[in-house]
Amino acid sequence: MALKYYHAEPAANSLKSMIPLMEKNLEFESVYVDLHKFEQHSEWFVKLNPEGQVPVLDHDGAVITHTTVINEYLEDVFPEIPLRPYDPVGKARMRYWNKFVDEQVMNYVSMHGWHRMVGVLARGIESGEFDKLVERIPLPDQRKKWRTARSGFSEADLANATDKITYACRKIDDHLADNPWLAGEMYTTADINFYSHCGMMVDRMFPELEVASNFPRLVDWCERVHARPAVQKALAMPNHTNPALRTFTGEAR
Amino acid sequence: MALKYYHAEPAANSLKSMIPLMEKNLEFESVYVDLHKFEQHSEWFVKLNPEGQVPVLDHDGAVITHTTVINEYLEDVFPEIPLRPYDPVGKARMRYWNKFVDEQVMNYVSMHGWHRMVGVLARGIESGEFDKLVERIPLPDQRKKWRTARSGFSEADLANATDKITYACRKIDDHLADNPWLAGEMYTTADINFYSHCGMMVDRMFPELEVASNFPRLVDWCERVHARPAVQKALAMPNHTNPALRTFTGEAR
Repeated sequence: MALKYYHAEPAANSLKSMIPLMEKNLEFESVYVDLHKFEQHSEWFVKLNPEGQVPVLDHDGAVITHTTVINEYLEDVFPEIPLRPYDPVGKARMRYWNKFVDEQVMNYVSMHGWHRMVGVLARGIESGEFDKLVERIPLPDQRKKWRTARSGFSEADLANATDKITYACRKIDDHLADNPWLAGEMYTTADINFYSHCGMMVDRMFPELEVASNFPRLVDWCERVHARPAVQKALAMPNHTNPALRTFTGEAR
Repeated sequence: MALKYYHAEPAANSLKSMIPLMEKNLEFESVYVDLHKFEQHSEWFVKLNPEGQVPVLDHDGAVITHTTVINEYLEDVFPEIPLRPYDPVGKARMRYWNKFVDEQVMNYVSMHGWHRMVGVLARGIESGEFDKLVERIPLPDQRKKWRTARSGFSEADLANATDKITYACRKIDDHLADNPWLAGEMYTTADINFYSHCGMMVDRMFPELEVASNFPRLVDWCERVHARPAVQKALAMPNHTNPALRTFTGEAR
């Protein structure tokens, strides 16, 4: 039984499947993929994952991509320390929230992150060189996103993204009034999902939301996730982000 | 054990969880929700599903929403006639494709459908009355979508949606070269998902794609799904759509 996890810095997607590996005490080989060097679009990596995106789980040669799919896979194969309820209704609650984060949260936080971090990175590259780098990107949507990050996302798109994030924080803060965790009584992959993509960094990225006073239950929940030894262990994985850019994602929290 | 399924016409979302119910030979009470009368935003329905969207599964009082979540739930509770592989890698393949359809296909076909059908419906309503109807819609995104459908989606957004659908047809046609079904050897909820949201209607909705000549494996796959008795049974459920509008979704295929 050999597990290999290809990942970047411990935030967002890369963190989201790292935490379950740590929670389950699984031994795995960590392979760092350097996004600063566009290693996710390099030949060797695209051979592994034709979509050219991190993270990737390789389990005895079975290659699994997309973090929500990876996290369900880990539950299916290693159920001993569960992060998914055993009862079908609990599973459905977990999946409802994972779907919500995947479709209504992730891309909107990501847009602000790209605007602030990837935009800086992309504008630092001479334009002929940049075009060559973009040509290597397998997914058409990712090519668009890189081009937009370089020229800058529109104010309207950024404002819409902030609205979506505010809506999510309100919805989750309300939900936590009656539930200790997103899926109910149990800490699950849904909590790990929202924490990795939004919770861990929302107060630092969006000071204008005044998270501490407007969403106190979210802050309390976030501290409970943050205090878990497995989460601490995942956050302590190598981080090569330029320290000046780190505060945007709250990694230095 | 009592199952109730609240649904609209047998296409898209409403069809997507109807087919598994039929495949599994489950007895259920069918409750038709009339979208032409905006019943999904009515008081009684929003009490059932605060998001005001069909379909909804009620299983002995447990209310499950979102078709991908419902279909996983049906596998968890009624595994006797399976539409989900038993092995974890097979499950991951199924979930990869469900995620692809949910995030990269559904909304883009839906935009064209709304542009052609809901737009006609919305423009038929006097504007004061329309504002009142929109105010009742619980989800902010759905309120926006109704307003946009009334004024018309932009040419750029529609063209982008067509690009996404073309990309999906190409990707799936290529994949079917080596796989009889999306998840591999087994017919699963992923096939049902793509069929309901795109496959069943793509040739009629987008004649410019020349589906028959460009994507022959997709056509063959589509015919195999279409021929299944459970799919025929689901498609035969009541359809109150104005017949003049039906051809857009290919329901009259």
